[in-house]
Amino acid sequence: MSGTPYRSEHDLLGDKNVPADVYYGVHTLRALENFPITGISIAVYPDLIRALAQIKLAAARANQQLGLLDATRADAIVAACRELIAGKLHDQFVVDVIQGGAGTSTNMNANEVIANRALEILGHGKGEYAHLHPNEHVNMGQSTNDVYPSALKLATYVGIFRLVEAMAHLRRSFERKADEFADVLKMGRTQLQDAVPMTLGQEFSTYAVMLGEDEERLKEAALLIREINLGATAIGTGINAHPDYAPLVCRLLAEVSGVPVVTAPNLVEATQDCGAFVQLSGVLKRVAVKLSKTCNDLRLLSSGPRAGLGEINLPARQAGSSIMPGKVNPVIPEVVNQIAYEVIGNDQTVTFAAEAGQLQLNAFEPIIAHSLFKSVHHLRAGCLTLADRCVDGITANRDTLRASVENSIGIVTALNPYIGYANATEVAAEAFRSGKSVTEVVLGQGLMTPEALAEVLRPEVLTRPRAIPAAPAAKP
Amino acid sequence: MSGTPYRSEHDLLGDKNVPADVYYGVHTLRALENFPITGISIAVYPDLIRALAQIKLAAARANQQLGLLDATRADAIVAACRELIAGKLHDQFVVDVIQGGAGTSTNMNANEVIANRALEILGHGKGEYAHLHPNEHVNMGQSTNDVYPSALKLATYVGIFRLVEAMAHLRRSFERKADEFADVLKMGRTQLQDAVPMTLGQEFSTYAVMLGEDEERLKEAALLIREINLGATAIGTGINAHPDYAPLVCRLLAEVSGVPVVTAPNLVEATQDCGAFVQLSGVLKRVAVKLSKTCNDLRLLSSGPRAGLGEINLPARQAGSSIMPGKVNPVIPEVVNQIAYEVIGNDQTVTFAAEAGQLQLNAFEPIIAHSLFKSVHHLRAGCLTLADRCVDGITANRDTLRASVENSIGIVTALNPYIGYANATEVAAEAFRSGKSVTEVVLGQGLMTPEALAEVLRPEVLTRPRAIPAAPAAKP
Amino acid sequence: MSGTPYRSEHDLLGDKNVPADVYYGVHTLRALENFPITGISIAVYPDLIRALAQIKLAAARANQQLGLLDATRADAIVAACRELIAGKLHDQFVVDVIQGGAGTSTNMNANEVIANRALEILGHGKGEYAHLHPNEHVNMGQSTNDVYPSALKLATYVGIFRLVEAMAHLRRSFERKADEFADVLKMGRTQLQDAVPMTLGQEFSTYAVMLGEDEERLKEAALLIREINLGATAIGTGINAHPDYAPLVCRLLAEVSGVPVVTAPNLVEATQDCGAFVQLSGVLKRVAVKLSKTCNDLRLLSSGPRAGLGEINLPARQAGSSIMPGKVNPVIPEVVNQIAYEVIGNDQTVTFAAEAGQLQLNAFEPIIAHSLFKSVHHLRAGCLTLADRCVDGITANRDTLRASVENSIGIVTALNPYIGYANATEVAAEAFRSGKSVTEVVLGQGLMTPEALAEVLRPEVLTRPRAIPAAPAAKP
Amino acid sequence: MSGTPYRSEHDLLGDKNVPADVYYGVHTLRALENFPITGISIAVYPDLIRALAQIKLAAARANQQLGLLDATRADAIVAACRELIAGKLHDQFVVDVIQGGAGTSTNMNANEVIANRALEILGHGKGEYAHLHPNEHVNMGQSTNDVYPSALKLATYVGIFRLVEAMAHLRRSFERKADEFADVLKMGRTQLQDAVPMTLGQEFSTYAVMLGEDEERLKEAALLIREINLGATAIGTGINAHPDYAPLVCRLLAEVSGVPVVTAPNLVEATQDCGAFVQLSGVLKRVAVKLSKTCNDLRLLSSGPRAGLGEINLPARQAGSSIMPGKVNPVIPEVVNQIAYEVIGNDQTVTFAAEAGQLQLNAFEPIIAHSLFKSVHHLRAGCLTLADRCVDGITANRDTLRASVENSIGIVTALNPYIGYANATEVAAEAFRSGKSVTEVVLGQGLMTPEALAEVLRPEVLTRPRAIPAAPAAKP
Repeated sequence: MSGTPYRSEHDLLGDKNVPADVYYGVHTLRALENFPITGISIAVYPDLIRALAQIKLAAARANQQLGLLDATRADAIVAACRELIAGKLHDQFVVDVIQGGAGTSTNMNANEVIANRALEILGHGKGEYAHLHPNEHVNMGQSTNDVYPSALKLATYVGIFRLVEAMAHLRRSFERKADEFADVLKMGRTQLQDAVPMTLGQEFSTYAVMLGEDEERLKEAALLIREINLGATAIGTGINAHPDYAPLVCRLLAEVSGVPVVTAPNLVEATQDCGAFVQLSGVLKRVAVKLSKTCNDLRLLSSGPRAGLGEINLPARQAGSSIMPGKVNPVIPEVVNQIAYEVIGNDQTVTFAAEAGQLQLNAFEPIIAHSLFKSVHHLRAGCLTLADRCVDGITANRDTLRASVENSIGIVTALNPYIGYANATEVAAEAFRSGKSVTEVVLGQGLMTPEALAEVLRPEVLTRPRAIPAAPAAKP
Repeated sequence: MSGTPYRSEHDLLGDKNVPADVYYGVHTLRALENFPITGISIAVYPDLIRALAQIKLAAARANQQLGLLDATRADAIVAACRELIAGKLHDQFVVDVIQGGAGTSTNMNANEVIANRALEILGHGKGEYAHLHPNEHVNMGQSTNDVYPSALKLATYVGIFRLVEAMAHLRRSFERKADEFADVLKMGRTQLQDAVPMTLGQEFSTYAVMLGEDEERLKEAALLIREINLGATAIGTGINAHPDYAPLVCRLLAEVSGVPVVTAPNLVEATQDCGAFVQLSGVLKRVAVKLSKTCNDLRLLSSGPRAGLGEINLPARQAGSSIMPGKVNPVIPEVVNQIAYEVIGNDQTVTFAAEAGQLQLNAFEPIIAHSLFKSVHHLRAGCLTLADRCVDGITANRDTLRASVENSIGIVTALNPYIGYANATEVAAEAFRSGKSVTEVVLGQGLMTPEALAEVLRPEVLTRPRAIPAAPAAKP
Repeated sequence: MSGTPYRSEHDLLGDKNVPADVYYGVHTLRALENFPITGISIAVYPDLIRALAQIKLAAARANQQLGLLDATRADAIVAACRELIAGKLHDQFVVDVIQGGAGTSTNMNANEVIANRALEILGHGKGEYAHLHPNEHVNMGQSTNDVYPSALKLATYVGIFRLVEAMAHLRRSFERKADEFADVLKMGRTQLQDAVPMTLGQEFSTYAVMLGEDEERLKEAALLIREINLGATAIGTGINAHPDYAPLVCRLLAEVSGVPVVTAPNLVEATQDCGAFVQLSGVLKRVAVKLSKTCNDLRLLSSGPRAGLGEINLPARQAGSSIMPGKVNPVIPEVVNQIAYEVIGNDQTVTFAAEAGQLQLNAFEPIIAHSLFKSVHHLRAGCLTLADRCVDGITANRDTLRASVENSIGIVTALNPYIGYANATEVAAEAFRSGKSVTEVVLGQGLMTPEALAEVLRPEVLTRPRAIPAAPAAKP
Repeated sequence: MSGTPYRSEHDLLGDKNVPADVYYGVHTLRALENFPITGISIAVYPDLIRALAQIKLAAARANQQLGLLDATRADAIVAACRELIAGKLHDQFVVDVIQGGAGTSTNMNANEVIANRALEILGHGKGEYAHLHPNEHVNMGQSTNDVYPSALKLATYVGIFRLVEAMAHLRRSFERKADEFADVLKMGRTQLQDAVPMTLGQEFSTYAVMLGEDEERLKEAALLIREINLGATAIGTGINAHPDYAPLVCRLLAEVSGVPVVTAPNLVEATQDCGAFVQLSGVLKRVAVKLSKTCNDLRLLSSGPRAGLGEINLPARQAGSSIMPGKVNPVIPEVVNQIAYEVIGNDQTVTFAAEAGQLQLNAFEPIIAHSLFKSVHHLRAGCLTLADRCVDGITANRDTLRASVENSIGIVTALNPYIGYANATEVAAEAFRSGKSVTEVVLGQGLMTPEALAEVLRPEVLTRPRAIPAAPAAKP
């Protein structure tokens, strides 16, 4: 067959010419023709390809240990998988990220690439499947329906922890700023209206705390996602898998991947259930919602420079306008907001796809995978960019902030325990009407002595709980 | 003032007549005028009113123990709260479920009802706030911004566990059916195409397992939701709260409510963060997605009676058509599907509202509360209805099911280890073309002996893993 | 049977006691038992009940004119329907707003109430269906599958135009404010950063224009929603309907309802298609998104009173805090934001329900109806509240606004055509660094004469296009 | 500067080295560094780049005709734009599809590439902006805030019509099948339960009709999307644009693009409003929902081959399983379902981004653009694939279908007008209980004569309206 640019392969539909030099085969080629949707192949998700190779490797060794696969073939399969794990031949994964068939085309693509590379290793030509067959040997004891979701889970698990690292990186940026701004007094706001004093450090520490909480939630979601269904084969009944295969392949996979995978207790359920994906997507949405809220705050606090709140300054990263000279925009928070909106949209896609599963399988896992991978990767990029290109360079306009407290009406709240809610309401109304400060009004009305007032309004005590006087007892 | 149908109350905006016989006051009345949106008042959520009363009770006792509130007033407040907890006066909670103001109107409604009832208990008239004031005494050491989210969390916590009970009730229905159908052989399906055999018991057990998993996920979400921010007051800095108040009120609230509430470690963060609500909503969406999938399956499996799959029969619950005599429809699964769609929509609302929080507060918690309460209550109703009015009465068409296995092409999968994937593919194609059974084709082609074939296709072994022969070793 | 509190009715499932005094019958009673979901009955949607009655009336007259129904029964049915149209007996519509069965229970509820009322009118007792039968006479030539979607469309059509009126009411409020603020100069902002000058009138006019556009979009959506499928009966083939029935009932329905209904060209398609509902929901979402954006702006522009933008003042509508005296919050925009979030969530529910339709029918129209009705009604309430309780009372802080322009760096944009983008960038940077005004920097650097600069920066010309100088020609 | 691999460019942030051979400049380079999010550049949307070039071309000519730009520079700009329109230099559009800055980076990328190419055409070196400047000449009279949304609209308009063509292609496939199956009698189903007879042709024609309707809805949405805001410049006030510029550039753009663009009546509103995008996205969601429903039906009708409905056969496109020999799956409908889920998710992203706009601009249009482009392109691919690789090859199992009608209970509906709903209900129940046919039961009970029954059940009359007997008149 040498010299010709094609080799012939055979499947259920008949014979088909496959380019002689490619590692994938007839099944992959048909999928290429069937799904010309996005033009983006699964090679953009190297974690997925590595996960598939780890599974195929673990399966080959498990089958070998069970006496079902000879050492020659097993070794060749393992060697081919190790190459994929090392990042080679990923360009042979050519099927579209959006594909029909419940991931069969992705699994077939992996089987064929591994089989053909293993054939080469064994000294055979590509396509000489009589020596080593994509389905009978590489896919032995497996079905797309256990391999594909297990690979998604492995790949997602790895991605989650990479995201968690990026979140921790961003969290530490906020923590450093919280320390730097620990003594910067400012007005807190509720419903965009002046409320009571706080420090800018307290404000920034909330962003850090939120991230820390979300890191924990993601780690919890990862615990759910590490539950695999290898050994389930077609629908979870384990048809054509050896009774000892499921626990063995799980142990081997944990070794080769470093991921503490466990086998689901009910494989029929595990094969059709997308609950862990929906839950993870929900947690990613939670992360997105809170990141977006944080970016909204950063954009609001840095609004100006002159007609805005002007409390903080984001570092300038690029000219902000093609027409307005000198304009600088909060482009880094803006891009993170948009990532958040994408993640929220992806969650919708995952929800729809998960609900659409029928009977023993969810056929729509490819779009679930595509959506989750995008969410995880883009959130990670957003966290890193936000930390390195924005938060680290934020500065505070300390004088503006302190003045806003001194000038505020909201500090009247601190007087409640001393003059009562009703009197304090009148003071606030008078200050608003007259433009005077709260101090002026209180002293003018003789409600407190200057010394008592100064003590109550000491900045250091305004931003935390303190002992307060008892309410006068009820009259008998 | 006796004899007139109104009493006059005063607030920031001036004086206002309040009907003399109502327990709420001027703040509630203004909210009534401001929010004529749904016509549905918060009284439809008794868990919320009980939670508010439990918080006010715990706060009164805490303030009393801290020496800030005298025993006379504290006792009266506690007595009033106990009445609310017992279900009285709920009709005095009249503000709309959709309201502006971050829950202030709900908190004010509670303060006013409790104050006026406490005044009565003390022998005063309604509105005589000089003796006991809604803000200064009932709301002492509190702000809407810590009371309201804490009340939501208490109420939601209680609702979650009521939902979990309903899910367990439904799970047990499915478990009973799984036992009943344990020996009913049928064809499993992937992508709506015949796959390999399983039992109807296995199919029904997946529905039970899914529910069991989701019960666990909800309990985990409940652990997050029990974290409260009492003591935070306006923005989390604890202004006007005694330093010992937060831990004390938390302990007292746990006692009075029976919910193991804990105080959030960072109160500034806790006051603005809606992460726990988003996460809970995501888990409720997960429950909805899987319930909906289950109902889709039930409707599909019971399709017919003659031109459908006809594998199971749902109990008839009502005539199905105003024109088609004798038609019976799967109305119970259909209503559960619709609840699921509502829950998924509610999750969207929660997501939007959570993202819209700004700076130190999320002003949109009322719509979050409304959405979560609906989701929790309707899912619970759906689970009970599905169990009692549908699943418990399901019967199987055993003969149809067994025939579908004997007649199937999919059992050829079991022959892979004996005749190879390639041969099996040819057998399947021939069976499909000719209308023959797999057994006929295999025997006709002499691929296996009748005895060997019968052994491989024994029903009892088709639905679980078994020892399989090794692949022939690679030729040297 | 008189004297006993029950009458016995019969259906597919057997005999059942119905309370003697109710107008609904056995089918409704079973639905009541089957769907204990929300506790809210369809009586909360009087437009729907009126629409059902109008359809039953038109059908009775059409059947009479076709010689299929005698005048005695037709007249009685028409009389009963007229009572429902007048608002009577709505409390007899007791089935839950969330119900299985594709609306059959709602249609049956209507058939039974109309039949029993008509029986009374004819001098018979309730339940004496031998004289006039809910299915054979009231439902003649009909099926739930044409009656129910047609009723939804009628009811929705009416609701849309009521919403459009409310939007026009709000639009006029904004238009009045735009006139009032026509001469108030202020800084425009892009990305929350100071951009170039505009008038507050221009800003408010955009809110009016947006509403005007959305009114048009809703009217277009109404044109799609008025297409009905009466005459389709069960699945669109028109089984059991007279060939002349469809056009006749459509004409009669247009007369009785005043809605210009038309019959869909393909009744099989029309019976299963929910496209018009999805489209309408999308347009309602558009309305919600823009209303929400408008409210976000109002809340931002009125932030303060001292540490915010403080450009406008919203009228105070209630005390804003249970702890912070004198605080006033933007509660009216906040409630409209929350309505918007609910509408967006409802759109998700509609989308899911619409996608779930199968083959010849969408069984999930009840939740579509519930979602659309809520969206239409709540948006209407929001528009009225926003107009009457907020926009009408807005005032401007004119001095603050004008100062922000004089003080701004953004006006440097107007100098581009005179000094070039590069020079203007340097001016902006210098002004930002030094705290000087743009005028000072330009004059200090001698880039323009004082007279030329003053002319270019005249307020009246800054907010609209004007003749600008040519760029210097390219050098040869 | 020749010989070195970099040229130096200058912006607000200082000097920066730009690779000497690239056509983009310092602004693009900074954006590249700021937004390392997806790794996908805007070059994947050639329609967008062409639209930008058309706008820049029209603007140059408009400025030239207004005497603001000399012919030398205008001609060079036009020549450069024509190259982009012809598909050249698209690889120079390198900024990420997800980017902050409201599209400024995309506009800057276009300005720089066009300026540098024009400089070359004029005989200058790249970066010699003194001769022709990206901002002062290419961007003259423009702002990102009018150029970018206008370019999105142009590009989307073109994409919509390409999608409409693909939908028409799919519609014609369904129409051909509807003709082919016009005489194939089958049972219609509601709620997955057997209803009444129809033809397979009627069923397939609904899919065609739905598409036709959706084509009309898309064309209507296109009419809204062609409204541009060129001339608005920064915020819609038209600062730095000649008063005659807006109408002139619109006319020129219509000429060069062939798209009938019109200028929005209120440019301030048009600059901040994303309503047309939300509406379009809603219509795309409608298309997705109905395509998904159609694919659900195709998968259901072709379920089997033996344990499913088995009414139609989809053409085999690839082997369906890596473990189940001979299995063929509905992979083409499945991929279209997943595209639909993606489009629904994209709509969510668009909704969030649109709602997040603030004051005079929506900063989040890049993610709106990305979402819309994906939806339009993938839906188009899905329609073409579904037509060519699935619908065209569908065959019917005519015997099975006809038998299902003869065997059905649902045909009893046709007897209502002859024997009454109550009798028909008893017949249906008896047929279900006994397994007998409706004909047997009716004749057995002597309810009709054989001749009358045969006439009523003639297949040709069952699938359309027909004259029916009058109900017996009410007794006096």
